[in-house]
Amino acid sequence: MGELRVRDVSEGELLGRILRILGPLSRAEVGPGDDAAVLAVPGGRIVWTTDTLVHGPDFRLAWTSPYDLGFKAAAVNLADVAAMGARPTGLLVALALPGTLPASFVDELATGFREALTQLSPGCAVEGGDLTVSDTLTVAVTAVGVLDGLAPVLRSGARAGDEIAVAGELGAASRGLRLLFSRFRDADGTPLPVATHDLTATEQRDLAAQLRPQPPVALGVAAARAGATAMMDVSDGLVLDATRLADASGVTVEFVADLDADALSGGEDHALLACFAPGTAPEGFAVIGRVVDRQQAPVLVGGSVPAGRGGWDPYADWDSARG
Amino acid sequence: MGELRVRDVSEGELLGRILRILGPLSRAEVGPGDDAAVLAVPGGRIVWTTDTLVHGPDFRLAWTSPYDLGFKAAAVNLADVAAMGARPTGLLVALALPGTLPASFVDELATGFREALTQLSPGCAVEGGDLTVSDTLTVAVTAVGVLDGLAPVLRSGARAGDEIAVAGELGAASRGLRLLFSRFRDADGTPLPVATHDLTATEQRDLAAQLRPQPPVALGVAAARAGATAMMDVSDGLVLDATRLADASGVTVEFVADLDADALSGGEDHALLACFAPGTAPEGFAVIGRVVDRQQAPVLVGGSVPAGRGGWDPYADWDSARG
Repeated sequence: MGELRVRDVSEGELLGRILRILGPLSRAEVGPGDDAAVLAVPGGRIVWTTDTLVHGPDFRLAWTSPYDLGFKAAAVNLADVAAMGARPTGLLVALALPGTLPASFVDELATGFREALTQLSPGCAVEGGDLTVSDTLTVAVTAVGVLDGLAPVLRSGARAGDEIAVAGELGAASRGLRLLFSRFRDADGTPLPVATHDLTATEQRDLAAQLRPQPPVALGVAAARAGATAMMDVSDGLVLDATRLADASGVTVEFVADLDADALSGGEDHALLACFAPGTAPEGFAVIGRVVDRQQAPVLVGGSVPAGRGGWDPYADWDSARG
Repeated sequence: MGELRVRDVSEGELLGRILRILGPLSRAEVGPGDDAAVLAVPGGRIVWTTDTLVHGPDFRLAWTSPYDLGFKAAAVNLADVAAMGARPTGLLVALALPGTLPASFVDELATGFREALTQLSPGCAVEGGDLTVSDTLTVAVTAVGVLDGLAPVLRSGARAGDEIAVAGELGAASRGLRLLFSRFRDADGTPLPVATHDLTATEQRDLAAQLRPQPPVALGVAAARAGATAMMDVSDGLVLDATRLADASGVTVEFVADLDADALSGGEDHALLACFAPGTAPEGFAVIGRVVDRQQAPVLVGGSVPAGRGGWDPYADWDSARG
């Protein structure tokens, strides 16, 4: 008898499996099961964001387990809420699943979501979603957060004289991705399953940073309380993202810390980059530079203009044929 | 010189094209452009929902224009917010686009979103989203609404003695879908472009109901104000959806109006189905039956148990190979 596939079970059965794992976390007024969820919003305004993971450009099942996929899909959205200085309170999860996937896929995916929520943002739950079929496995997540009376921390508030600081690691996720591409593909470039016993402890840590990123979600609120003037999630590479912050604020960011190429241009770290008045960065943030009056270049590294684009653009950088 | 494709332009350029069309509608405190959007929520709670359209099971580009796709993606999500008795205030739109699509695709898609918002829910805007690449064109939308001090109208509140009423058309969208399958495919079943001049006026109306559904969004709030005891969006077929309402409420729904097979089991109408104390259904709702104490069957049609499933299940009903 073959394994039960997604196409063999009804939408209601699939939903039931997911809700057995994720339902208990819900604290919403109306959680999953009606046309829409209802969520209390203390303070009367919400922060909300959406980020999608697509099989091919964003992950491969040969490298990413369903658990890791759920964990990462939650983590990257929680990081965006945190980067506004907000506290995440709920997720909606829209799954588009190939019918050939094992039905148990959704159990492991839901478990990854549950663990990410429990570890990174206790009190936040999946409050609803959507199930559909697709030839391309796609996980589209929306996250909502609340500000608890604080102002949102935008990209546009950095001022000359601020320090710029980072919470979370830089460069590990891109080293992890490089490991996958260099060590776990066959001669044709097809992804091969990851044999972790062949990796050093450092390599395993880099791989974990790529597959199960651990953004410092709670430090987003800490930064807002400490008076951060600007903040953002570092998802596309430090130089590229700092350029966006510098452009939005009309300033130049000058990095003075010793940062290697991975730290400068590696994507997917989901660290928090924030600006503070000198000496006010809270615990968990490391000062790596300063904000100065706008120069010709938006970003300087050790006094020089960094080479290259310093990050990742999905439309220019992904090739479907190559995978 | 060939047409400009999605893969030829940067994410920033694509986003700029979309925001030129949709940005002017935004009234959020922080709209598109930061890590997350910030939205004021009068009343301190939100209604939120997500619904995804996937190329293949949900639409085909041979039949659906980018404009229609944007219109429908907005409409189906607005309908879910309305079905809670709420007023939609914002959308997030996550697009996963094949790189081979013309770059102008996003302009037409954004225009469809704009027109649906303007026609169906003035004051509601796209407040953010996500852009990524995929082999399968996917539009994942999240909608948020506010309750303006009213209680949300759930599926679970119907009581014996209520009337059950519908706002919006039933059956037209499924007749439109049948037209597409029967008249606009080649011998192999491959979708062919729609030649509307070959269609009667009625057929054109049915096709429009399928491609650009017009849910009566404002009547959701009207129903809540009139004291609706239960309400839901009819998206999968009247009998199937009424079964969900009857099961959630612990009652049986008895339809007495003259309803044909399309009205009873056709999906995608996005009409509103609501229960009211006798004589209190507001203008725009047509009474089509009554709520009675729970019988063995959750739904009766003219006193009998309806045959078949009465609706659509994407996991059981869609075959990727057949398209």
